[in-house]
Amino acid sequence: MLYLIGLGLSHESDITVRGLETVKKCKNVFLEAYTSILMAADKASLEKFYGREVILADRELVESGSDTILADAKDDDVAFLVVGDPFGATTHSDLIIRARELGIQVETIHNASVMNAVGACGLQLYQFGQTVSLVFFTDTWKPDSFYDKIMENRRIGLHTLVLLDIKVKEQSIENLARGRLVYEPPRYMSIETAASQLLEIEEIRNEKAYTPDTPCVAISRLGSPSQTFKAASLQDLSNYESGDPLHSLIILGRRVHDLELDYLDAYASDPKKFREDVVKDQEYFKPAPYVPPEEPLSD
Amino acid sequence: MLYLIGLGLSHESDITVRGLETVKKCKNVFLEAYTSILMAADKASLEKFYGREVILADRELVESGSDTILADAKDDDVAFLVVGDPFGATTHSDLIIRARELGIQVETIHNASVMNAVGACGLQLYQFGQTVSLVFFTDTWKPDSFYDKIMENRRIGLHTLVLLDIKVKEQSIENLARGRLVYEPPRYMSIETAASQLLEIEEIRNEKAYTPDTPCVAISRLGSPSQTFKAASLQDLSNYESGDPLHSLIILGRRVHDLELDYLDAYASDPKKFREDVVKDQEYFKPAPYVPPEEPLSD
Repeated sequence: MLYLIGLGLSHESDITVRGLETVKKCKNVFLEAYTSILMAADKASLEKFYGREVILADRELVESGSDTILADAKDDDVAFLVVGDPFGATTHSDLIIRARELGIQVETIHNASVMNAVGACGLQLYQFGQTVSLVFFTDTWKPDSFYDKIMENRRIGLHTLVLLDIKVKEQSIENLARGRLVYEPPRYMSIETAASQLLEIEEIRNEKAYTPDTPCVAISRLGSPSQTFKAASLQDLSNYESGDPLHSLIILGRRVHDLELDYLDAYASDPKKFREDVVKDQEYFKPAPYVPPEEPLSD
Repeated sequence: MLYLIGLGLSHESDITVRGLETVKKCKNVFLEAYTSILMAADKASLEKFYGREVILADRELVESGSDTILADAKDDDVAFLVVGDPFGATTHSDLIIRARELGIQVETIHNASVMNAVGACGLQLYQFGQTVSLVFFTDTWKPDSFYDKIMENRRIGLHTLVLLDIKVKEQSIENLARGRLVYEPPRYMSIETAASQLLEIEEIRNEKAYTPDTPCVAISRLGSPSQTFKAASLQDLSNYESGDPLHSLIILGRRVHDLELDYLDAYASDPKKFREDVVKDQEYFKPAPYVPPEEPLSD
């Protein structure tokens, strides 16, 4: 049996009781270690908590060497641990499809992921459109496919969750070219960088998918003891000091409920300005006012 | 301190280790018992698992009597347990805002909810638009605000998660009028009912937000030992026997990835027909084909 087990967001103890019981009985325990991190735990602390050896699975092992992970899963129990939920931002569908092909049974033990825990900022999950990703720009590579998606969401008044790039165990182009297994230090996109990159693309495209005044919520270290929310305009967030990773960003949509705003008050440095920004932003993508059909004058 | 603790989807042991440790140390433990249920647990089994008394909190206690819940939270620890995640489909923002007003600190311990665990069917969470709710129709009351939202999602090619009505501790109109505290047996919407209601509204509106042939995924008992997924057209699902609750339904959007379809194959009674339905459905809301701008003939 292959168990896909979500670890939640931050602590060793964010695993579920059922997840922990399962880890303890598995022959091999792999930890997917390239799409996210647990903020208040590491390999050593997890091993201590589980009383088991944990094997770090990098992208290569998961994507090309999945048969290594699945080798013992036919006759024994194997755990594949994923930060957040196994079907969160990164799905592991291909690993499961491969397991099915090999006749291996799969069971999932779910957990919180950023995709649902983000509701903790007070914005309602019902009001979110599609989630987008933002990668680190380089001088020559600034992929902006998120822009059209944010536009689609905002046209119908919905919030957008923007997931920020994480670079773990990446090689420089030079090391890659020379075949040297030397890895760059991990990088986690900050709120400041995300907001600046978003503004850079708006400046180029200028289609007003959002503007410097668009209200946003910065989500830092969600689910960890130092979790922080900040409600401010995109412009203000480009000068924010968001601190340690991980971060995500929400771009608000026009359909904001009063209860959402009441909740966000506590996270705005300047609640009055934030509410003004919300009102101003509601002019974008506003439905045309209702005009009654013209009727011929009677008499 | 007020702790909002997610219980996950099904088993007593779906609570996180940190959640369980917290419940054990709280003075009072309330369980929100009107918007969802744990499929493989009840009050008695939870009390046994926690070694603590659990107080069922109905809608009235949470919405009008929140000060009862918060009474001891200023000086002692109080746990408010929520099936799924505290910020999932039903948010408890007002309880938290009230706690803040009373100067009570609040901490959330997240868990999986249908809003993220739904990814287990193989459809990618990135590809979902806004989530909608479907309530039980009566002869005279058939609210259809979900219809425009599904239309909005499908226009831009996105999947829609449809959450199905749950009626717990509801009074009949007669008992309500006579002030008799007699409650109806709980009702949980089945897939068959949901699909039929959706088709009924499509027949009335006839704007082709979806059709009887639109591909869907029925999600039954998500996260429980008898979890079942069924990939079929909306028409076929109106005759499906979905069995014990809880259920949710996904209406697919036009943007379906091959990997999503490969994954769904295992859940279709007739994978070939399901794929044909997907192809047919992609004709709706299809962007107009690219036409190069006309240029004057050079000569």
